[in-house]
Amino acid sequence: MQDTIPHWLSKQADISPNCAAIQYANGYQITFQELKEQSQMYAKKLATWGVKEGSHVAVLSTNKQAMITAIHAISYLKAVVVLLNTRLTNEELTYQIKDADASFLIYADELKVKAVQIPCLNKAVFEEIDNYHEHADIVLTTEIQLNTPFSIMYTSGTTGSPKGVIHTYGNHWWSAIGSALNLGIHSDDKWLAALPIFHVSGLSILIRSVVYGMSVYLLEKFDKTSVQKAIMHEGVTIVSVVTVMLQQLLEELGTDRYPTSLRCVLLGGGPAPRPLLEQAKEMNVPVFQSFGMTETASQIVTLSAGDALQKVGSAGKPLFPAQLMIKDPDHSGVGEICVKGPMVTSGYYKKREATNKAIQGGWLATGDLGYLDDEGFLYVVERRHDLIISGGENIYPSEIESALAGHPAIKEVGVTGISDTKWGEVPIAFIVTKYRLTLQEIMSYLDEHVASYKQPKEVYEVDALPRNASNKLVRSHLKQIRGKEGCKQLR
Amino acid sequence: MQDTIPHWLSKQADISPNCAAIQYANGYQITFQELKEQSQMYAKKLATWGVKEGSHVAVLSTNKQAMITAIHAISYLKAVVVLLNTRLTNEELTYQIKDADASFLIYADELKVKAVQIPCLNKAVFEEIDNYHEHADIVLTTEIQLNTPFSIMYTSGTTGSPKGVIHTYGNHWWSAIGSALNLGIHSDDKWLAALPIFHVSGLSILIRSVVYGMSVYLLEKFDKTSVQKAIMHEGVTIVSVVTVMLQQLLEELGTDRYPTSLRCVLLGGGPAPRPLLEQAKEMNVPVFQSFGMTETASQIVTLSAGDALQKVGSAGKPLFPAQLMIKDPDHSGVGEICVKGPMVTSGYYKKREATNKAIQGGWLATGDLGYLDDEGFLYVVERRHDLIISGGENIYPSEIESALAGHPAIKEVGVTGISDTKWGEVPIAFIVTKYRLTLQEIMSYLDEHVASYKQPKEVYEVDALPRNASNKLVRSHLKQIRGKEGCKQLR
Repeated sequence: MQDTIPHWLSKQADISPNCAAIQYANGYQITFQELKEQSQMYAKKLATWGVKEGSHVAVLSTNKQAMITAIHAISYLKAVVVLLNTRLTNEELTYQIKDADASFLIYADELKVKAVQIPCLNKAVFEEIDNYHEHADIVLTTEIQLNTPFSIMYTSGTTGSPKGVIHTYGNHWWSAIGSALNLGIHSDDKWLAALPIFHVSGLSILIRSVVYGMSVYLLEKFDKTSVQKAIMHEGVTIVSVVTVMLQQLLEELGTDRYPTSLRCVLLGGGPAPRPLLEQAKEMNVPVFQSFGMTETASQIVTLSAGDALQKVGSAGKPLFPAQLMIKDPDHSGVGEICVKGPMVTSGYYKKREATNKAIQGGWLATGDLGYLDDEGFLYVVERRHDLIISGGENIYPSEIESALAGHPAIKEVGVTGISDTKWGEVPIAFIVTKYRLTLQEIMSYLDEHVASYKQPKEVYEVDALPRNASNKLVRSHLKQIRGKEGCKQLR
Repeated sequence: MQDTIPHWLSKQADISPNCAAIQYANGYQITFQELKEQSQMYAKKLATWGVKEGSHVAVLSTNKQAMITAIHAISYLKAVVVLLNTRLTNEELTYQIKDADASFLIYADELKVKAVQIPCLNKAVFEEIDNYHEHADIVLTTEIQLNTPFSIMYTSGTTGSPKGVIHTYGNHWWSAIGSALNLGIHSDDKWLAALPIFHVSGLSILIRSVVYGMSVYLLEKFDKTSVQKAIMHEGVTIVSVVTVMLQQLLEELGTDRYPTSLRCVLLGGGPAPRPLLEQAKEMNVPVFQSFGMTETASQIVTLSAGDALQKVGSAGKPLFPAQLMIKDPDHSGVGEICVKGPMVTSGYYKKREATNKAIQGGWLATGDLGYLDDEGFLYVVERRHDLIISGGENIYPSEIESALAGHPAIKEVGVTGISDTKWGEVPIAFIVTKYRLTLQEIMSYLDEHVASYKQPKEVYEVDALPRNASNKLVRSHLKQIRGKEGCKQLR
C-alpha cells in the first residue's frame, strides 16, 4: 500500500485559507492561502531555473519567510530540499553539498560571503529567483506520496564523515501525528519556533503547522526577551526549547509567571539537569522533556501533560506510533535505547552500510544509554558515543578529532566534553604534537575546518593520550589528565 | 514501506492505563488497562477454541462490553472480525458468514435463537469462551501492520449480492486521524456511541477511543432520553447521530439547551432535511454534517467547527488525508462524488470485479451525486443508486426486489423510497403477480428473507411497472402510479 495524501500545504490552504500560518515578531503574518500561492509561484520560478522532480536543492538560510517559501516550493516540484547548518565552515558545507548531490543552492543574502565560496552548479540568492518568469508548462504536484523523500539533513556520528539523513514525507507526517496524539490539537494553538529550521527540531514545527492548520510564531533566532514577550502577549501555547534556552527563559521570567495559555514547553536536545527541571516545576512552567534525534524526525519519546509533574527527569514514553526497547540491559537495567516507528528515517543518503548498521529490523540503535522505570518511563543516562550537546547543537568528538588530526604538526588528538554553565557542555581537546605549534596556529586551522560552535574551548598539549590495552583512546579518562604533570594548557 | 505501529490497545493501555476507555449508563466503566487485559485473556481463550492468525471470526451482537472485548481479542490473534448486523434474517446472515469464509461465530446470548439457526463450523455465546483455559503457548501480537485486514462488514449495492468491505488497520487508523485533524483532540473528550458497533459508524468510535486515549460513553441502542441525559450530565463532548436521531434529540431538548461542553454532533447516514439543520442551528446545537459510507471507513467529508454555521446543508470538505472529485459534472456542476484517501477500503472480499469497478486509480466512485460551491464545500444532491436511508440504515431497492422476485407468484417487482416523518425514508413495493397472493403471504415470505427494517411499508399490486424504452425499470416513476387506476394497495 503506497499511501497518498493531498499536498499538505494545498490541503491546509483549502481547509483554513485565512488562518495565519506564520507570524513574525514585527507583526507580519502570512496565511495558509498566501503561503500556498507564494510557494507555488516560487516553485514555477525554480522550475524555470532548472529545478525539477528529483533535483536536490540545498538551502542555506537562517529562519525567514523566504526559506519557508522555498522549502514548500521545492516540495511542489517533487524535488528534495537539503538543509544546511549556517554555522558550518565552507569546508563542511562543501562536503555536504557534494555528498548530497545538490546541484542547486539557494541562500539568504546575508550569507552571500559564505555561499559564493561553496562550489555548486547553480547558485542564487532567494530574491534572484524572483526575477525569473514563471515556468508556464510546469505542473505542480497536488499529492504527496508518503514514502518519497522530502528533505535531507546532515548528522555526524562516532566515525566517518557526516551522513545525510533522508526524511520522507511519511517520516515528517508520522512525527506530526505522534506529537498531536500526545499533546492534543487545540484550535487556538500557536507554536513558537526559535530553533533553526535547518535542524529537524525547527523544521518539524513547520510541518505540524501545515498538518494541523496551526499558526507558528517564528523568530529568526532565540533570544530570551523576544520569546518571553511572545509567550506573555502573543498567545503562544507551545514552545520548543533546548536546555540552554530553558535556563535563560527561567532567568528572564524571575518571579513573574507565564499565562496559563502556555500549555507546553517542549524540551529537547539532550537531557536537562535535574535542578533546572525542578526549578521549572516550582515556577509552574509546563516542561515536557523529550528524546529524539535527526534520525527520528524530532521527538520520538516525550512526557505527556499528565505525567510531566510526577516524572521530572524522565523523557517520557514513546509517541503513539513508536516503540522503545532497551538493548542488552546490564544488572541495573541500563542498555542502549532503540526505537522503532514510521517516523524513523529509512536511512542515510548513499550510505547503505551505515544505514544497515544503525537500523536493523526497523529498530534504530540510538547509541544513547538509558533505562525504563517500572511504569515504562524512559530515563536517559548517557549520551551516544561521547556526544557533546552544546546549546542544543550536537558535537561529535570524533569529528573535531579528525579535523585536528589533519594538521601536519598534530600526531594524536582526543576530544571530550565538560559541563558549562551557559551551554550545558563544551568540547575540550588534548593534543600530542609532532613539532611545536602555537595556539593561534591551531585555532586558525580550526576556523577553516570546523564551525566555531564546535571548536574546543580548552586545548591541552600532552605527551600521550589515555589508551586502553587495545591502544584505543579512552575518552572518558581525558578529563582526569587536566592539571596533571605534563599537561600544558594552551587555551 | 510497510507501516508498523504498536498494537493500539496495548499502546493506549501503556500511555493512559487508568483512563476510562468505555463508560456505560449503569455506571460501569472499564479502563484501557483493564480492556487490554480482558481482551488479551479472551484472545488466549479464543486461541484454545481454535482461532488463529488469519481466521475469520463472525460476531453477532448489539453494543456491549463482551463484543468490544471480542473485537480487540480477535485483533490480538491477527484474526479478522466479521461484523454482522443483528437485524438481518437468518438467510442474510447465512449468506454473509459463508461469503466471508467465517469458520467461527460468537454471539450475544440474547441472539441465541437466531445464531443456532445459522450454519457455521464453530459457534459459541460470548460467555462460553470464558470456560476455556487460556492457551498457554499463544503469542499475542504486539504490533499492527497497517496494511493487513482488521474487519469485514457487508454492504449492499445496486446489483448483485451484498459485498464484504475489507477494512485494514490502516483504513481505520487514517479515518481516526482524519477526524482528529478536523475536530481536534481535547484531553476531556468523551464520545457518545449509540450507533451499532456492527456498523462502521459505531466501530470507528471504538477505534478513535484507543487511538486518542478517549472515553466512549456507550449505549446499547439509541434512545433519546438516555442520550439527552448523558449529554446533560455525563460530560459528553461529541455524539454521532443519524438524521432520525437528531430529530428526536431536538424534540427531547425542547426549549432547554445543551451544555457548552458538547462541542460536536456529528451527523452522518445521508443528507438531512434543511429545516432540521436550521432548527438545530437556532437551538445552538453544534451539528457537523458529514458524508461517508462503509467503503470510506466512516466520514470522509465533514463540516468543521468554523464552517458549521455558515455552511448549513453542506457536508463540508474532505478530511485532511482525503481528496474529493466530482466526476463528469453536468452544466450545473452536479456529478458523481468520487473520493480518494488512505481510509478508503482496498476492496470487497473475494470480489475483484466489483472492486475494480468501484475503485479506479485510488478513486472510489460513491454513486452519489453532488456539487461543490465556489469555496469547495460539498453538497450532496442525490443518493447512490436509488438508495433508501431509513433511520440511518441503508436499504437498496434492488435487494428487496430480488428477494420478492424469488416468490413463485411474483412476476415483476419495483421498490422505491418515500419520505417518512419518523425514519426519514421508508421503502415501498410495487408488484405484478402471476397468480393471486395475499398480503400475509407476501409478508411472511419477506420475514424469512429480508430484515424487518428493510420490508416495504406499503405494498401495491399493479398491472405493469413503469419501464423505459430499453424495458428497464424506472424507479423514479414508481411513486407516481400510487393512487392511479389499476394500482391496488395491499398494505
